[in-house]
Amino acid sequence: MSQHSAPQSTPQVGIIMGSDSDLPVMQEAAAILAEFGVPYEMTIVSAHRTPKRLYDYAETAVERGLRVIIAGAGGAAHLPGMAAAITPLPVIGVPVKSACLSGEDSLLSIVQMPAGVPVATVAINGAKNAGILAAQILGAADPAMRERIVRYKRDLEAQVMEKVARLEQNH
Amino acid sequence: MSQHSAPQSTPQVGIIMGSDSDLPVMQEAAAILAEFGVPYEMTIVSAHRTPKRLYDYAETAVERGLRVIIAGAGGAAHLPGMAAAITPLPVIGVPVKSACLSGEDSLLSIVQMPAGVPVATVAINGAKNAGILAAQILGAADPAMRERIVRYKRDLEAQVMEKVARLEQNH
Amino acid sequence: MSQHSAPQSTPQVGIIMGSDSDLPVMQEAAAILAEFGVPYEMTIVSAHRTPKRLYDYAETAVERGLRVIIAGAGGAAHLPGMAAAITPLPVIGVPVKSACLSGEDSLLSIVQMPAGVPVATVAINGAKNAGILAAQILGAADPAMRERIVRYKRDLEAQVMEKVARLEQNH
Amino acid sequence: MSQHSAPQSTPQVGIIMGSDSDLPVMQEAAAILAEFGVPYEMTIVSAHRTPKRLYDYAETAVERGLRVIIAGAGGAAHLPGMAAAITPLPVIGVPVKSACLSGEDSLLSIVQMPAGVPVATVAINGAKNAGILAAQILGAADPAMRERIVRYKRDLEAQVMEKVARLEQNH
Amino acid sequence: MSQHSAPQSTPQVGIIMGSDSDLPVMQEAAAILAEFGVPYEMTIVSAHRTPKRLYDYAETAVERGLRVIIAGAGGAAHLPGMAAAITPLPVIGVPVKSACLSGEDSLLSIVQMPAGVPVATVAINGAKNAGILAAQILGAADPAMRERIVRYKRDLEAQVMEKVARLEQNH
Amino acid sequence: MSQHSAPQSTPQVGIIMGSDSDLPVMQEAAAILAEFGVPYEMTIVSAHRTPKRLYDYAETAVERGLRVIIAGAGGAAHLPGMAAAITPLPVIGVPVKSACLSGEDSLLSIVQMPAGVPVATVAINGAKNAGILAAQILGAADPAMRERIVRYKRDLEAQVMEKVARLEQNH
Amino acid sequence: MSQHSAPQSTPQVGIIMGSDSDLPVMQEAAAILAEFGVPYEMTIVSAHRTPKRLYDYAETAVERGLRVIIAGAGGAAHLPGMAAAITPLPVIGVPVKSACLSGEDSLLSIVQMPAGVPVATVAINGAKNAGILAAQILGAADPAMRERIVRYKRDLEAQVMEKVARLEQNH
Amino acid sequence: MSQHSAPQSTPQVGIIMGSDSDLPVMQEAAAILAEFGVPYEMTIVSAHRTPKRLYDYAETAVERGLRVIIAGAGGAAHLPGMAAAITPLPVIGVPVKSACLSGEDSLLSIVQMPAGVPVATVAINGAKNAGILAAQILGAADPAMRERIVRYKRDLEAQVMEKVARLEQNH
Repeated sequence: MSQHSAPQSTPQVGIIMGSDSDLPVMQEAAAILAEFGVPYEMTIVSAHRTPKRLYDYAETAVERGLRVIIAGAGGAAHLPGMAAAITPLPVIGVPVKSACLSGEDSLLSIVQMPAGVPVATVAINGAKNAGILAAQILGAADPAMRERIVRYKRDLEAQVMEKVARLEQNH
Repeated sequence: MSQHSAPQSTPQVGIIMGSDSDLPVMQEAAAILAEFGVPYEMTIVSAHRTPKRLYDYAETAVERGLRVIIAGAGGAAHLPGMAAAITPLPVIGVPVKSACLSGEDSLLSIVQMPAGVPVATVAINGAKNAGILAAQILGAADPAMRERIVRYKRDLEAQVMEKVARLEQNH
Repeated sequence: MSQHSAPQSTPQVGIIMGSDSDLPVMQEAAAILAEFGVPYEMTIVSAHRTPKRLYDYAETAVERGLRVIIAGAGGAAHLPGMAAAITPLPVIGVPVKSACLSGEDSLLSIVQMPAGVPVATVAINGAKNAGILAAQILGAADPAMRERIVRYKRDLEAQVMEKVARLEQNH
Repeated sequence: MSQHSAPQSTPQVGIIMGSDSDLPVMQEAAAILAEFGVPYEMTIVSAHRTPKRLYDYAETAVERGLRVIIAGAGGAAHLPGMAAAITPLPVIGVPVKSACLSGEDSLLSIVQMPAGVPVATVAINGAKNAGILAAQILGAADPAMRERIVRYKRDLEAQVMEKVARLEQNH
Repeated sequence: MSQHSAPQSTPQVGIIMGSDSDLPVMQEAAAILAEFGVPYEMTIVSAHRTPKRLYDYAETAVERGLRVIIAGAGGAAHLPGMAAAITPLPVIGVPVKSACLSGEDSLLSIVQMPAGVPVATVAINGAKNAGILAAQILGAADPAMRERIVRYKRDLEAQVMEKVARLEQNH
Repeated sequence: MSQHSAPQSTPQVGIIMGSDSDLPVMQEAAAILAEFGVPYEMTIVSAHRTPKRLYDYAETAVERGLRVIIAGAGGAAHLPGMAAAITPLPVIGVPVKSACLSGEDSLLSIVQMPAGVPVATVAINGAKNAGILAAQILGAADPAMRERIVRYKRDLEAQVMEKVARLEQNH
Repeated sequence: MSQHSAPQSTPQVGIIMGSDSDLPVMQEAAAILAEFGVPYEMTIVSAHRTPKRLYDYAETAVERGLRVIIAGAGGAAHLPGMAAAITPLPVIGVPVKSACLSGEDSLLSIVQMPAGVPVATVAINGAKNAGILAAQILGAADPAMRERIVRYKRDLEAQVMEKVARLEQNH
Repeated sequence: MSQHSAPQSTPQVGIIMGSDSDLPVMQEAAAILAEFGVPYEMTIVSAHRTPKRLYDYAETAVERGLRVIIAGAGGAAHLPGMAAAITPLPVIGVPVKSACLSGEDSLLSIVQMPAGVPVATVAINGAKNAGILAAQILGAADPAMRERIVRYKRDLEAQVMEKVARLEQNH
């Protein structure tokens, strides 16, 4: 698997997606993790086309050092839920916008999990937020990471204030 | 697994459901298969709570003699799609009506499968039709079974005609 | 009707669609059946504009040697359900994406059949899966066909693994 | 078929429904037609369980003297659209509230007809309005009937005004 | 108002729409009425911007000789329902596809009328069908018009058969 | 019309509803207005059954001293939008929960008004909030009324804090 | 904040939006307020990225002289509801069309407020109507402003009548 | 606030809900956290009725030792998103089933958060899963907790196998 953010460090977050067509959406998760300095790996795992690979990926996730899994999929999006069925790690689900139903199918397939097996679902195409949530989860026990989240939120605020200034100049 | 319709005969249809709460719906599939004289087995296989059991069930389905699988589930209903991912047999999916979204989530999670892995989806709570469809699938290569389908359709028609007569008497 | 996959062999699958505008979607069913070596025929049968033709098509399907019907339609998509009402053969329904409601109308019109008359519904625009499902249905009683399904699933897996390799090189 | 409103007169409106479970809804159409003095007949015609009966009913409607057909059905509600496909008469469709999707499936299956074959759709469970619409259609060429519609509208208004008076007394 | 199909003849159908942006959809109703030889008038009546004009239009419809009204509108589409509230004539409603909700809002605003005041609703953007339905309504009491409907249905069938022939040549 | 909150004072808010079946919902608007000391009147005005009454009510609202109209309706809920079409006063729309579609139809029929004619829409069955909003509108130019709103918000907060205390005692 | 309509006059309406991407929609509110001669201010306040700024904005709105707030937001659109939670002023919410769910999410997030805290919701992307509604609210206590609303409605009517004339010439 | 699971230990998870009517749903989160031995606190925080309390709660969450927040709300459910806007901690959102729209409004209001501010959303009424997810988040950095998750998953599996045995005995 492709590993990032200092090749020597063990990936802490595994980003998986059902198809390479999900890559444009899912790499936003990778980009924000890189920004937060979180080592991650990213690959394709199809629940429906490579069910054994899914099983192995989720089964070995803990021992390979992963602490969070981000899984993106569209339509009858079973990848996040099946990963969550197998691993004890928290799994974040990204409903990818689908061709016909705008991602409503993806959203419901991911979020409506039965009691016992949660998937932490973010917005349709919300891969960036999946990355931030993974960092927050790591930050729950890591004050340095939490500090980066605090700074990130401050930057968000600063960006809005710049736009405020620009709007007031132009109108 | 519980086997029916002449215990000596190998089950041809496997009925699985995600939870015992699906049983009141799913036993309509069993009842109609019994009516058609199709040997079946029925058990609980939870995609999310017993993922290995799901893999094993679907993996061994062909060698155990099954020719069709009927899978019912509600909410983020992954059971039919995951069974279809693993077995080469035709899989019929029954979206079970869910507590909050009336089965719309179950329906979309089951029917919106990606290219390569179909699930033959029937109506929400349509377990009886799942059983009839299984019989039709067996009947595709079995003229005797097809004849039973033809008779079943004739009976349906006769039942409607009885109700027609009753309505005309009463109104 | 146009017949395929060795003109001398009797078509086993009938592909029908409500309008020639459904052809770009529905020929994916034809293409995959050709790949599986299943002889098929393909034509237009409109439930609403040629109701008698629909009746005749479905009425004679068994005697003409068909073993499965694939029917695609959009909007108030009555073709699959009406074919299923008339023939004892298994009918696969393909909800074609509609101009205004993205195929949600087509999906509900096809899948929500009453007890007694199932339609094996696939995803919106899922004609390729309809073809695969038809092959699986034929394979329920034909080990050679089932073997082709197994190989097809292996190919799907291999294609994913190639994409995995490409993703890992590029990222 | 059961005939009403002076047995000697030819029914002008045919009320059909897909199942006897639709009767509690559909008899509101009969009741209002009786109120308007329109002779009608009422029976069960199932598109899916008695397809030949549907063909015959719609095929012979004109010659039997019908001038409007009211068809009620639920779920994948094909009855109104198929009747409209066969007869040149105006067909009024009543989407009957369904068990799982509250009639949204019935509504879309009835109203989203393709170009060339309209169904005059009324509200979910709106059988009373179907009867009024049938009377309006007959009234398009019959001033006496139209006068009854005018009086009916005046009565509606008077009933509201009575409720206005009662509300003002009580509050 | 613009009158068509032989200027000397009194319009029998009034086509109204809420906005000139509905014209591209609504003129399909005009075109098919012209084809059926039905004299019609067509104009803009906005329930929300010209409420008095709506009132006057609907109030005088009968005395001006109209026998059917076709009303098209989008979003909170009140025009058909308000016309139906005022006139005793049958009113056909055309839900025009809306910018944000694809016409689902238009459809529900038009079709879900309360008991007492029906609107004969056709498909989203189904103005052509509204025209055909108007002709069918006129044909309920006019055998010559009904004969034109019968011919129109035969032509529809012939057009499908031509496409069947073309498909069979090309595939 | 029934007038409240000191019979001698001119009503400032008119509460209208499409049917007396809306009364259990709509009297919550009356109750909260009474609590705020806002004189109001309440009556039934049906857009579809008493269209002239609707015109008159909205047409004379300003001269009768009303400053805000609250209109509640269900299904194809045209009352708020038509009132807004006629009066220059702000109109608050209350979508009343409908029998079949849970008020989704009511909501879309009320909120999706075209440019030029707004309806201030509140939640499904949100009549209490309609009353508060009416008070806020009056308070926009009336500091004493605004002060009552401020106190009301403080009371809301105090009620929550009481529940907080109770929860902490019991758990 | 940018102030308009005579810089010396205190803004009476505050227009806020969650993101600068909402500006193309929201400036329609500004344009119509300018047309009505209502002084306003317009700026960006993000509920999620600048929560303190939101708090301060809403907290100080009354003392800064605002009498109405217009808040536009998309997706999980919390800005209007949170502003309404803090200020006693009437808050108008504009659901901005979202990328994936066409604004259905924005609409429900804004309109479905709990009892006690209303948001006056307009149509998806209905910023122009939000501006008109703000003017109507100011007009509730200001006959001159109400007169401008009356004139505006007359102009709307005149514009429709011009289009009527043009349609009748062209058809 | 009420504190649990050994009163001397600092709560690690804060459970908040918008109203005491959410308590029957939300206490499932408390129950499962108690089962996992996670110290938690539980209270009511209303985004709309106690906005300052919300700010304070979220603002001080880190310093009070919380590591995860679970927030449940219904309708225009702003509580989870606003908490996530203020705290750097991971926030889990529970959409509570609403009276009219079955929780679809709650779900969309919670999950469709803008880029930068994720809420980890679980199923409608999925408070139990929210508690499990909180434990998984704590377990991401705590092998003992993760071991409890593993055991919990094994128990889930065992419970299913018991039901399997019971089903096979009874059928």
